[in-house]
Amino acid sequence: MKSTELNHSKFQELEQAIAKKWQTFLEQPQALQFINSLMGKDRRIYALYLTQVYHYAFHTARNQALVAVNPENRNIHYMQFCLEHALEETGHELMALHDLRAIGVDIQDPEAEMPPTLTPTKLLIAYLYWISQTGNPVQRLGYSFWAERSYSYIKNFMDNLRSSMALNRADMTFFYSHSAIDDKHAKDVEDILMKVCNTEEDWAAVSEAAIITLDLTHQIIKAVLDEYAKLVRSESSNFELLNCVALTASRA
Amino acid sequence: MKSTELNHSKFQELEQAIAKKWQTFLEQPQALQFINSLMGKDRRIYALYLTQVYHYAFHTARNQALVAVNPENRNIHYMQFCLEHALEETGHELMALHDLRAIGVDIQDPEAEMPPTLTPTKLLIAYLYWISQTGNPVQRLGYSFWAERSYSYIKNFMDNLRSSMALNRADMTFFYSHSAIDDKHAKDVEDILMKVCNTEEDWAAVSEAAIITLDLTHQIIKAVLDEYAKLVRSESSNFELLNCVALTASRA
Amino acid sequence: MKSTELNHSKFQELEQAIAKKWQTFLEQPQALQFINSLMGKDRRIYALYLTQVYHYAFHTARNQALVAVNPENRNIHYMQFCLEHALEETGHELMALHDLRAIGVDIQDPEAEMPPTLTPTKLLIAYLYWISQTGNPVQRLGYSFWAERSYSYIKNFMDNLRSSMALNRADMTFFYSHSAIDDKHAKDVEDILMKVCNTEEDWAAVSEAAIITLDLTHQIIKAVLDEYAKLVRSESSNFELLNCVALTASRA
Amino acid sequence: MKSTELNHSKFQELEQAIAKKWQTFLEQPQALQFINSLMGKDRRIYALYLTQVYHYAFHTARNQALVAVNPENRNIHYMQFCLEHALEETGHELMALHDLRAIGVDIQDPEAEMPPTLTPTKLLIAYLYWISQTGNPVQRLGYSFWAERSYSYIKNFMDNLRSSMALNRADMTFFYSHSAIDDKHAKDVEDILMKVCNTEEDWAAVSEAAIITLDLTHQIIKAVLDEYAKLVRSESSNFELLNCVALTASRA
Repeated sequence: MKSTELNHSKFQELEQAIAKKWQTFLEQPQALQFINSLMGKDRRIYALYLTQVYHYAFHTARNQALVAVNPENRNIHYMQFCLEHALEETGHELMALHDLRAIGVDIQDPEAEMPPTLTPTKLLIAYLYWISQTGNPVQRLGYSFWAERSYSYIKNFMDNLRSSMALNRADMTFFYSHSAIDDKHAKDVEDILMKVCNTEEDWAAVSEAAIITLDLTHQIIKAVLDEYAKLVRSESSNFELLNCVALTASRA
Repeated sequence: MKSTELNHSKFQELEQAIAKKWQTFLEQPQALQFINSLMGKDRRIYALYLTQVYHYAFHTARNQALVAVNPENRNIHYMQFCLEHALEETGHELMALHDLRAIGVDIQDPEAEMPPTLTPTKLLIAYLYWISQTGNPVQRLGYSFWAERSYSYIKNFMDNLRSSMALNRADMTFFYSHSAIDDKHAKDVEDILMKVCNTEEDWAAVSEAAIITLDLTHQIIKAVLDEYAKLVRSESSNFELLNCVALTASRA
Repeated sequence: MKSTELNHSKFQELEQAIAKKWQTFLEQPQALQFINSLMGKDRRIYALYLTQVYHYAFHTARNQALVAVNPENRNIHYMQFCLEHALEETGHELMALHDLRAIGVDIQDPEAEMPPTLTPTKLLIAYLYWISQTGNPVQRLGYSFWAERSYSYIKNFMDNLRSSMALNRADMTFFYSHSAIDDKHAKDVEDILMKVCNTEEDWAAVSEAAIITLDLTHQIIKAVLDEYAKLVRSESSNFELLNCVALTASRA
Repeated sequence: MKSTELNHSKFQELEQAIAKKWQTFLEQPQALQFINSLMGKDRRIYALYLTQVYHYAFHTARNQALVAVNPENRNIHYMQFCLEHALEETGHELMALHDLRAIGVDIQDPEAEMPPTLTPTKLLIAYLYWISQTGNPVQRLGYSFWAERSYSYIKNFMDNLRSSMALNRADMTFFYSHSAIDDKHAKDVEDILMKVCNTEEDWAAVSEAAIITLDLTHQIIKAVLDEYAKLVRSESSNFELLNCVALTASRA
C-alpha cells in the first residue's frame, strides 16, 4: 500500500474509533444523570469540571512544548507544529479561572485556593508528560486529534448547558474560544499527521494515545459526578468552596 | 528606587557590560589573526565555525522551549516569548548546513558526516540546557540579550568576510537571516526583560548568564582558530573534510 | 499534637486504608474468576501478568532513583533510602523474564518479542515518573508503602497458584525474592516515613499516592483478565505468543 | 584486535592522558602561586575552594544517579555501579560544610549564606548533568575515572597544605574520606569500564569527558585564585565572608 493510501485509510479508522468512543460515552446512564442535574440548573457540576480544566490546562502547553524539545523529534515541521500549538494553548488555565469567577466562585489566588486535582486528571497530566518525553514523538498527536475535534460532539450539550444555567457565551470562554479555533486546528492536526506518520507503528502509537486520553477524559467526568454527589449529600469534600454556586443558583 | 527606574538602570548596565566584552574580544590578537587569515581568502575557518553553529543551533530552539516548560515560569507573557522565539529558531541548524554546502562542503547526511562538536560548544549547549531547566527562569534572557544585539558588533566583520571570500549574501543565510530579524528581536527581549525582571537578583541572574554565554562563544571562536591551525599545519584533525574548501579557495 | 503522635496516628490510618482496599479487591467477583481460572491450571493468566511485571519493573528502579535526583529532596537520609532501594530493584525485570521462560514462554529478545504494555501499566509507569520528578518528594513512599507490605495479602493466593500450576518456588523468582526482602523493606519504609513526614500535607501526599498506585495495580489485574478472556475466546490479541503455555498446561 | 586487548590498550592511553594533564597543571606558575600562598598560612584560599566543593558536591550524587535513570543505559551492572556510587557520594557537600566550619567559617544556613558558585564550577555541574542525561551513557565514567585516581597526584600537596595551615586530618574530611575510599573506587571504575566499553567510540566518549571535566576542575582552581587575589587586594567580592579565616590565621 502506498504511504498516502495507508495514511488516508488509517486516518479514517482513527476518526471512526473516536466517533464510536463518543457515542458510547454519550449513551451512558451517567451522561444522562449529568444532563438531568444540569437541567436542575445546579452550576456546581460545571464549576467542578472547570476546576479540573484549570489543572490540566496549566500543563497542556508545557507538555506540548516538550515534544519539540525531544531530541528524537527531528522533523522541523512537527517541531513547529508543537511550538505553535503550545503557544496558542499558553495560559488557557486562566480562561477556566475566569469562567469560575464568572459563575460566582470567588478565587483570588488559584495556587492557594483552587480545589484539588482529581485522580484521573492527575493520570491524564502524568500520561501526557510521559508520552511527550519518551517513545515515538508522534504519539501525542493522538490527544490533539480528538481534542480539536470534540466540538461537534459536545456542542449541543454545551449549548443546552448554557441555556439551562442561564449563562452568557462570555462566561464560557474556555469552551467557546477553543471551539472557535477548532476548525483551523483540526485541519492543522490532519495535515501534520499526514506528514509525520509513515508507518503502521506511527498510526498505532497515535491511535493508542487518542483512546487512552479520551478514556481518561471520560473518567474525569465520572470523577466530577462523584464529587458532585458528595456535595449534594453534604458529605465532607475538598470542593465545598463550590457550594456558593449552588446557593447562587437556588436564589436565581 | 522604583522598579521601573531599577530596570532602566540595570538594562543600561547590562548593555555596557556586553559592549565592553565585545570591545575586549575584537581587540585581541587572536581576533586580528582571524581577520588576517580571512583576508587570505581561506574559507576553512568560516566552514569550521559553521560546523559549530550547526551543533549549537540544533539545541537553541529546544532549550529555549524548555524555559516555557519549567513549572516555576508562571508568567504567561514570558512563556509566550519563549515559545515564539523557540518557534522562530526551529531548524536554523539547516541554515548552517545550507551555508556549508553553499561554500562547497559536501555533507549529505549531517548526523553521520558533520565534524564534531568542540569542547566550548558542548559547554555552551550544556549550560543553556541547565539554566533553562533549573533556577531563576529569567536567566536565559541573558543569552538572548546579547545574541540578538550582536549584529552591530560583527556586521563590519561579516561584510569584510563576505567580500574577501567572494560570497553572496544568499550563501550566508544563517548570518543574514538572523541579522534581518535582529531589530524586532532585540526590542522583544528588551520588552520582556522589563516585564519579568523585578529584583536585583533577577538582573544579576540575567547578567551572569549573558557574560558566561558570551565568553563561551568567544571560546568557540578560539577553539575554531586552534582547529584551523591544525589544518594549516596538516596535523591529524577531525575536520579534514573541510580541506576541500581550502582547495576551492586557492583555485579561485 | 506532637509530630511523633501525628506520625503514628497517620501511619495507622494509612495501614488501615490499604488493608481496606485489599479486602475490597479480594472480595470482587473478578478476583474469584481469577482464582477459578487458575484452578483450571491455565498458566496463560500468570504469563500475562508477568509480561506486565516485566514492563513496570523496567522502570521501578529508574523512577525510584529520580526521587534522589529531585533538587527539592534535601533530606540526606531520604536520598540514601531512594538510592538503596533503586539499587535493590535494579534489573528485576529480568526476574519476570526468567519466570516467563521458566513456565515455557520462549522469549529470546525481550525488546523485540515481549507482548505490549497494557493501558493501566502505562498509567502506573507514567504516574510514578511524574510524582518522582514533581511535587512533594515524599509522595512516592506511598507506592513503596503498600508494595513492600503486599506479601501478607497475596501470600495465600500465590501459594495456591503455585500449587495449582504445579510450579516450583524457583520458577517464581519475582514473587518469592520480593517477599523474602519484604520484612526488612517494610521496616525501612516505616522508618523513613517517620523521618521525612512532618506535616499533614506530607501524609496526605503519601496516602494519595498509595491509593492511586494500588488502584492502578488492581486495574492491571483487570486488564490482564480481559486479555485472558480474549485468548480463551480465540480473539485477535497481542498476547497470542502466550498460548503456548496453555497447550503445555493442557498436555500436563 | 580483540575487545579485551582494545580495552587494555585504551585504558592505558586514558591513564597516560590524565597523568600528562596533571603534570601540566602542577607545573604551571599559578599552581606555584597557590602553593606559595599556602605557605603563608592563609586559609582563605582553602576556604574558597571548599565553597566550590560544596556547590558541585551537592550535584555529584544526583547526576551520577541520572545515568542509571537514562533509558539507553540497559546494562544492569552499570546501573548498579551508578546507584552504588551515587549512594556513596550522597551528602558529601556536608563534609565540605563541616570543613569550612572546622577552619572557622561560621555558616549556619548554607542555602542562604554559602558564597556563590563560580563560573567554571557552574560549567562543570551543567556539563555533568548533560552527559548523564544524553548521549552515550558510558561517557560519565570519564569523570569518575580521574576523580577516583586524583589522590596520588594531590596527596603531597594536601599534606603540605595541612601542615602549613596547622590543620588536623579531622578538619579535612572531604579530602581524607575520599582518599580513603579511593583504592576501592578506582578498582570499581576500572572493572566497570572494562565491562561497558566495547568500541572505540565508547573509549573516545569516556576519554573526552575525562579531559573536559579535568580541565574544568583546573579552571575552578584558577577561578579560586582570582577570587583570592581580589580578597588580598581588598576588592569588592562575594567571598568577603571568608576574610574571617585570614584574621584567624594571622592571629595564630
